[in-house]
Amino acid sequence: MPSSIPDIVISRLPVYLRALERLSQEGQEVTSSHELGKRLGISSAQIRKDLSHFGGFGKQGTGYRIAYLREQLRQVLNVERDWEVALIGAGDLGNAVARYRGFSNRGFHIACVFDSAPDKVGKSIGEFLILPLDNLHTVITERGIKIAMVAVPAEAAQSVADTLIAAGVRAILNYAPINLNVPDNVHVQYIDPVIHLQRMTYYLD
Amino acid sequence: MPSSIPDIVISRLPVYLRALERLSQEGQEVTSSHELGKRLGISSAQIRKDLSHFGGFGKQGTGYRIAYLREQLRQVLNVERDWEVALIGAGDLGNAVARYRGFSNRGFHIACVFDSAPDKVGKSIGEFLILPLDNLHTVITERGIKIAMVAVPAEAAQSVADTLIAAGVRAILNYAPINLNVPDNVHVQYIDPVIHLQRMTYYLD
Repeated sequence: MPSSIPDIVISRLPVYLRALERLSQEGQEVTSSHELGKRLGISSAQIRKDLSHFGGFGKQGTGYRIAYLREQLRQVLNVERDWEVALIGAGDLGNAVARYRGFSNRGFHIACVFDSAPDKVGKSIGEFLILPLDNLHTVITERGIKIAMVAVPAEAAQSVADTLIAAGVRAILNYAPINLNVPDNVHVQYIDPVIHLQRMTYYLD
Repeated sequence: MPSSIPDIVISRLPVYLRALERLSQEGQEVTSSHELGKRLGISSAQIRKDLSHFGGFGKQGTGYRIAYLREQLRQVLNVERDWEVALIGAGDLGNAVARYRGFSNRGFHIACVFDSAPDKVGKSIGEFLILPLDNLHTVITERGIKIAMVAVPAEAAQSVADTLIAAGVRAILNYAPINLNVPDNVHVQYIDPVIHLQRMTYYLD
């Protein structure tokens, strides 16, 4: 895999993949950078340029074969396999995350749920037994889990992240409304809907 | 407000605001671009440059007064007031969104919840009565609601968005895993955690 692909290009590939999966569900077999661009609000030139980083997926004039391009993107993104994910936090937010069915549909399987509250440990969220935070290192190390979702209060998030990283986690999806300090070889993405709302209110009267 | 501020700058302001609110909670009164940058993983030069778009908030050498800078950012982002938000979709995802307490804490109040399913209409999610989708236009127009959160299945999202926009909504937070086509004067932000996970698996072995 070329390592010089800019992160901004990588960030768009899952969006392309999602659009291709949708087109495929709709029964379509071939698409074009023009059609994708129109669906996504991205210029067709940008799409062609992004995809050219990974070798030509399509031929000029004939468009992209959706099934082929989709498989290529799944390989590039490392999602042709399934991933186990640890969920930390079994409060309201963790509950919602654990019950969201969109993860396993798309290859991300919650493997274990942790919480520090004694009244939560031993109970279940749906099919998941809530484990004590003290077991985090052991369970994650033994199962070789590389991905975690953090849904704990802001004040606990950094310490949970530190423990996760020490146990070998290298990708964190952080739902806590706080920025995390992590080493360079660990990736963090943030889900904070209020940030997105505030970004839009700037434009409202 | 200067209209030439790049959207990428605007996108960082809510992150600065969140960090300032956190520092303030921690009892701190003054900060610096250096400290903010370290917390956020953004260079201090970038932070100074971003904030300079709105006039100097701080004096060289003395740092930023947190309370003042926070108020300025709240004004710039239009969040010194509260906003009413419509929620469309009362399924699993809509339920989680309706129950998430992080919105009203930060000035976004769900004002009404809509669903098309006859077995959901008339029931409640927490304190919210679920209204039929047919009432969407009337309710949103009458209340002058400008912001909506869309938590319907992918195949319904575009049509819901069209209805929202016709009723005067100008900012949509879209939880449906599909890109929306909207006019230039309407803003859309996306919440799709799987996109963020896939963006990180690229870097995992």
